[in-house]
Amino acid sequence: MMARTTLALASLTLSASLAFAQNSGPPVNVPPALLEDIVVGSHILAEFGVVDAFGHVSARDPSNASHFLMSRSLAPALVTAEDIMEFDLDGNAVDARGRPVFLERFIHAEIYKARPDVMAVVHTHSPGVIPFSVSKTPLRALFHNAGFLAAGVPVWDIAREFGQTDMLVRDSGIGKSLARTLSDKSVVLMRGHGDVTVGPDVKVAVFRAYYTDVDARLQSQAIGLGTEITYLSAEEGAKADAINFAVLERVWNLWKERVQAGVGK
Amino acid sequence: MMARTTLALASLTLSASLAFAQNSGPPVNVPPALLEDIVVGSHILAEFGVVDAFGHVSARDPSNASHFLMSRSLAPALVTAEDIMEFDLDGNAVDARGRPVFLERFIHAEIYKARPDVMAVVHTHSPGVIPFSVSKTPLRALFHNAGFLAAGVPVWDIAREFGQTDMLVRDSGIGKSLARTLSDKSVVLMRGHGDVTVGPDVKVAVFRAYYTDVDARLQSQAIGLGTEITYLSAEEGAKADAINFAVLERVWNLWKERVQAGVGK
Amino acid sequence: MMARTTLALASLTLSASLAFAQNSGPPVNVPPALLEDIVVGSHILAEFGVVDAFGHVSARDPSNASHFLMSRSLAPALVTAEDIMEFDLDGNAVDARGRPVFLERFIHAEIYKARPDVMAVVHTHSPGVIPFSVSKTPLRALFHNAGFLAAGVPVWDIAREFGQTDMLVRDSGIGKSLARTLSDKSVVLMRGHGDVTVGPDVKVAVFRAYYTDVDARLQSQAIGLGTEITYLSAEEGAKADAINFAVLERVWNLWKERVQAGVGK
Amino acid sequence: MMARTTLALASLTLSASLAFAQNSGPPVNVPPALLEDIVVGSHILAEFGVVDAFGHVSARDPSNASHFLMSRSLAPALVTAEDIMEFDLDGNAVDARGRPVFLERFIHAEIYKARPDVMAVVHTHSPGVIPFSVSKTPLRALFHNAGFLAAGVPVWDIAREFGQTDMLVRDSGIGKSLARTLSDKSVVLMRGHGDVTVGPDVKVAVFRAYYTDVDARLQSQAIGLGTEITYLSAEEGAKADAINFAVLERVWNLWKERVQAGVGK
Repeated sequence: MMARTTLALASLTLSASLAFAQNSGPPVNVPPALLEDIVVGSHILAEFGVVDAFGHVSARDPSNASHFLMSRSLAPALVTAEDIMEFDLDGNAVDARGRPVFLERFIHAEIYKARPDVMAVVHTHSPGVIPFSVSKTPLRALFHNAGFLAAGVPVWDIAREFGQTDMLVRDSGIGKSLARTLSDKSVVLMRGHGDVTVGPDVKVAVFRAYYTDVDARLQSQAIGLGTEITYLSAEEGAKADAINFAVLERVWNLWKERVQAGVGK
Repeated sequence: MMARTTLALASLTLSASLAFAQNSGPPVNVPPALLEDIVVGSHILAEFGVVDAFGHVSARDPSNASHFLMSRSLAPALVTAEDIMEFDLDGNAVDARGRPVFLERFIHAEIYKARPDVMAVVHTHSPGVIPFSVSKTPLRALFHNAGFLAAGVPVWDIAREFGQTDMLVRDSGIGKSLARTLSDKSVVLMRGHGDVTVGPDVKVAVFRAYYTDVDARLQSQAIGLGTEITYLSAEEGAKADAINFAVLERVWNLWKERVQAGVGK
Repeated sequence: MMARTTLALASLTLSASLAFAQNSGPPVNVPPALLEDIVVGSHILAEFGVVDAFGHVSARDPSNASHFLMSRSLAPALVTAEDIMEFDLDGNAVDARGRPVFLERFIHAEIYKARPDVMAVVHTHSPGVIPFSVSKTPLRALFHNAGFLAAGVPVWDIAREFGQTDMLVRDSGIGKSLARTLSDKSVVLMRGHGDVTVGPDVKVAVFRAYYTDVDARLQSQAIGLGTEITYLSAEEGAKADAINFAVLERVWNLWKERVQAGVGK
Repeated sequence: MMARTTLALASLTLSASLAFAQNSGPPVNVPPALLEDIVVGSHILAEFGVVDAFGHVSARDPSNASHFLMSRSLAPALVTAEDIMEFDLDGNAVDARGRPVFLERFIHAEIYKARPDVMAVVHTHSPGVIPFSVSKTPLRALFHNAGFLAAGVPVWDIAREFGQTDMLVRDSGIGKSLARTLSDKSVVLMRGHGDVTVGPDVKVAVFRAYYTDVDARLQSQAIGLGTEITYLSAEEGAKADAINFAVLERVWNLWKERVQAGVGK
């Protein structure tokens, strides 16, 4: 659905970018391929309905481990390389130039701080996943493409430490709490809100966001069948996840061509 | 799906409008931006499947609190600014010029009468919501984007006061009954029929119609998981809803560009 | 999805029609508006996924009550006026000219024979409905647009009279049995197969096929909520169905413009 | 969704093919119509969401029963005739020319070895089917288009013989085990992974992959209704399946025109 839309959006966004002219443009010294991964990853997740008007994709700056890259506040389907900004690990924009930033950038900042192995973070309101965030039924790895879930999927409830809030990760303290619950896992669910997936690069984090949503839907359907379910064991999950890395380029190329077809190439 | 269709519909509707020529055209003295909100809101709800051939979006006249603006009888996907008519709070068209009007305009009229704070009303046959309208299971706020549901979602059953009917809000008396059940809430379900959402402007009422549908689907899925569910508390819902207002422009811009992409811009 | 496809299909079908030249073409003396209703109705049901490669729409010949009109054997999305053939009530093609005919034309023939009030018949493998055809749970009217279901929805099981078959209505005897189970109702489900809807004209029969599918999906979701359901009473259903007739033109115009938008008009 | 994308993909793939020039191109002596069936079948399954970035369609070489034809490692939506390679029944590429091959080609090789009647094999991660692969609830024939399921649908669990693996059919031994579980049936489910369908030609194998997915979704919905279900008997299934062969050309033509419409013809 979004691919179709992106055609017109691309030109609209172009003119918007020109209007921004002097106060926009991505950080210098960032590899263009990395900016492209953030943009394409955002469009892929919009195309598949994993993100809607909300959600964001970020990457750690490869030349400065205490900085990360993330779009200005904008719906993922509309993000272009021109919209990428640079932030430090306290969530401060390095060169704001008046651009509006995401309130929940602390999700990303605190995970990069706590997890040196993480090079990319995705936050979504994934519709397959939200039901698991509010249920006592744990999300589990049902099939091999979601093998990374077999290590366990923690659920973070903001109310446990912060009481009655607006549900948002709006400061470093809340971000730290979320990062602690994520621990060494690949995915954390946020009660009544969505999820966060992480990975060693943008492609893996996006792949995980997508297949977490797919797995959640499959598990809901399997539960509906009313009989016992065989999940992947932790060992099967770890082995299957290793294979995901091997086939990732094939998957990414399909997805990329799919969203780029939408912009008329 | 509808965005694609809208391209051809736009030109069809244009010629239809020319044929109407002398007896159509929106009320004078209404801000064009308000007409656009009604049109865009109607197209957004069609695009997302929240309305089909039925449903309507209205706004109170900002210069005359006892009048409201609403399309002539037409499927929401086809509404243009030319189709907007003006009504008083008894549901009479101010300047009908022979145009067919919606039978259920009394939904809007009586809510504007009972709720001075309401500036926009949306009526839908939202497919996620209808199951809750006929069930003893109350619709509740499952995630923060639907925080406005945490104040409670009353269900109105036309049979309680009016016995065996055709289910429609076809006069002021029935409209008054519905408005009483809505009370001070943002949403009311209509048994075996659909729902009504209200707000301080068109964008908010449309946002609520969309996220009521999303929340209903998520709650259905969560119930299917078979274990206890944690809903948003009333306080969480109120706080989360306040944030919705802050991000509404970002959401609306995405949606608007999406439906307008469909008309080839 | 199908609307998009129809563009290319239209030209493909055109050349196919030219190749057919001397042995195709609709029956003479049939009002073009009726042929158009059959074609548009077929495309609408394909667009909404109520029919896939299977299913058919027919109409009684207005000038000869013992004949009916129906496409040659062809997927509903591909039907054009050129493909409509004429049949008698024993299922014989009046002027076959070597064209392949639907095996299940006896569904239509026997219903026209048994029900003088019926002027149009639709047969589908509607995915929302098939689960109810194999379940002890009766399909019921859940909301007003499907009020016609409140009179009762019989289920016909071919095995009851005919034992172990290929499930198809392949002769007049099987068609008669189906027509007997339909009785004076608007819809009959066929176990492990699909449904048939009838009406006083093509638009009503198509409307009923579509809203039977919608109602079935809503009822499935409502059952999933796990609490008691309030269905429309027989009287509410009858009254609501009368209103459907009043708004049918509005609905049909939206649907028709939607499928015709797909062919580039 | 994919049909739309295919337009741009076709040209992208064309340039990619030219770059491959000397080390690509399909095997000589294979009927072009067979190559087309593999390509069209791959695109159909992508269009309907039965395959995503994963899955493959193969055919036995009609002139050499100990060879089979299958795409190089590529997402099904992107496969062209140029990408088809030839393999022997040990899974060795006959003329690899450096092209990457599917790890799971042993699914195909061992089934062709064990089942001389099988001329085509399809492997998918069909989302309707995966829940049945991990559940104690058997997949059964619910409606006549899926009559081939009434003979029984075995479930193969890789862990039974091979313990803790990455879930993939990565060698001849694992392929043999899968082929043994398939036995003389048309479909076998793979626990936590997907399914395999087979047939006497590509069209039948693709038809079965599609209707296995449809049947699984219908059965899930029927189970949700909570009452007893009447499935097709083995005899009904066998008789209904025979009819599928008779109507297959009609179905295939619709599907083919649908995916080809996507490439602008």
